[in-house]
Amino acid sequence: MKTYRKELWFNTPNRRDFVNITGQVRQCLAESSVKEGLCLVNAMHITASVFINDDEPGLHHDFETWLEKLAPEKPYSQYHHNSGEDNADAHLKRTVMGREVVVAITNGELDFGPWEQIFYGEFDGRRKKRVLVKIIGE
Amino acid sequence: MKTYRKELWFNTPNRRDFVNITGQVRQCLAESSVKEGLCLVNAMHITASVFINDDEPGLHHDFETWLEKLAPEKPYSQYHHNSGEDNADAHLKRTVMGREVVVAITNGELDFGPWEQIFYGEFDGRRKKRVLVKIIGE
Amino acid sequence: MKTYRKELWFNTPNRRDFVNITGQVRQCLAESSVKEGLCLVNAMHITASVFINDDEPGLHHDFETWLEKLAPEKPYSQYHHNSGEDNADAHLKRTVMGREVVVAITNGELDFGPWEQIFYGEFDGRRKKRVLVKIIGE
Repeated sequence: MKTYRKELWFNTPNRRDFVNITGQVRQCLAESSVKEGLCLVNAMHITASVFINDDEPGLHHDFETWLEKLAPEKPYSQYHHNSGEDNADAHLKRTVMGREVVVAITNGELDFGPWEQIFYGEFDGRRKKRVLVKIIGE
Repeated sequence: MKTYRKELWFNTPNRRDFVNITGQVRQCLAESSVKEGLCLVNAMHITASVFINDDEPGLHHDFETWLEKLAPEKPYSQYHHNSGEDNADAHLKRTVMGREVVVAITNGELDFGPWEQIFYGEFDGRRKKRVLVKIIGE
Repeated sequence: MKTYRKELWFNTPNRRDFVNITGQVRQCLAESSVKEGLCLVNAMHITASVFINDDEPGLHHDFETWLEKLAPEKPYSQYHHNSGEDNADAHLKRTVMGREVVVAITNGELDFGPWEQIFYGEFDGRRKKRVLVKIIGE
């Protein structure tokens, strides 16, 4: 069994952002030389997300609006977590979007449907944060 | 290490539907002859879901009502994604329900609790769409 | 390939509770003697969750309030599932929080960011329920 591990680093200029990381994960897979197996991609921080969806700016705008409706950033005082912090909403938003994805590897490729793209979802940015890529297989 | 891959195809008559695919995944596991490992089951489309819950029609009715409350289909004009498309709500609903499940394989069986069943969740149906089953192990 | 399996049992005194199980999962990993691989941790019941977030009581209070807003327990009569049962809300809450996590194993450790902790999320407690830990690797 082969294994591969890499950290991807991000520092988004905005509090919230979506970054397409499909190319970076493909590069990891190429470096791993795994042909058949599983690829785990997860946020290493609890106010960020890794998820799979469409690379379409209108949809990303809809995600932002929708997450703000489900778990509003402000007023900060509505959350018990926000004593000395202001990012309780980021913990909730990341919960909706998910921590991780597991992707099948087949014939040395990410085994994706036609529109699947992997995103880093940042909900408390403007600082350095990490995503873990772990690949196992043969 | 053994690996196995299969696509399951669906074409639901309704825009939204839940289909119990536990039997089909069990059949995949039997074909794989894997006795110990992991089974990934994921939607290959970004307006559909694979999730584990109860096979109880009342609950499925509750899921439909609840998802329509969290991410209503209409009015279509409320979503930026809906310029030329009308399925933004399906992207959001699939996000709540999840893209994938990873199931343990033990002694050649899906290692499930008493009520766990795997479902395909369709949120933009009436066309052919796919689920991927990928199994790795020994 | 090595594999390891263990069930963790819970019986929470309250209907809803969050239990930090990171130590128990670390113990499983030590028993498995796997150094490189993947660790799946999933609820075996469909009204409970396994998720990764912060071990901070204020945040857990926020999760409780937020989940009650998204999927209220009462009135029981609002849910079709509640004919003879009263736990429809628990199925919905578990859907938001997720069934499972997959954690990378590197150098014999859970490969975690600085604040990641694994929780059992109970939404219909006061009875015995189980979590599955399945580890594969080398």
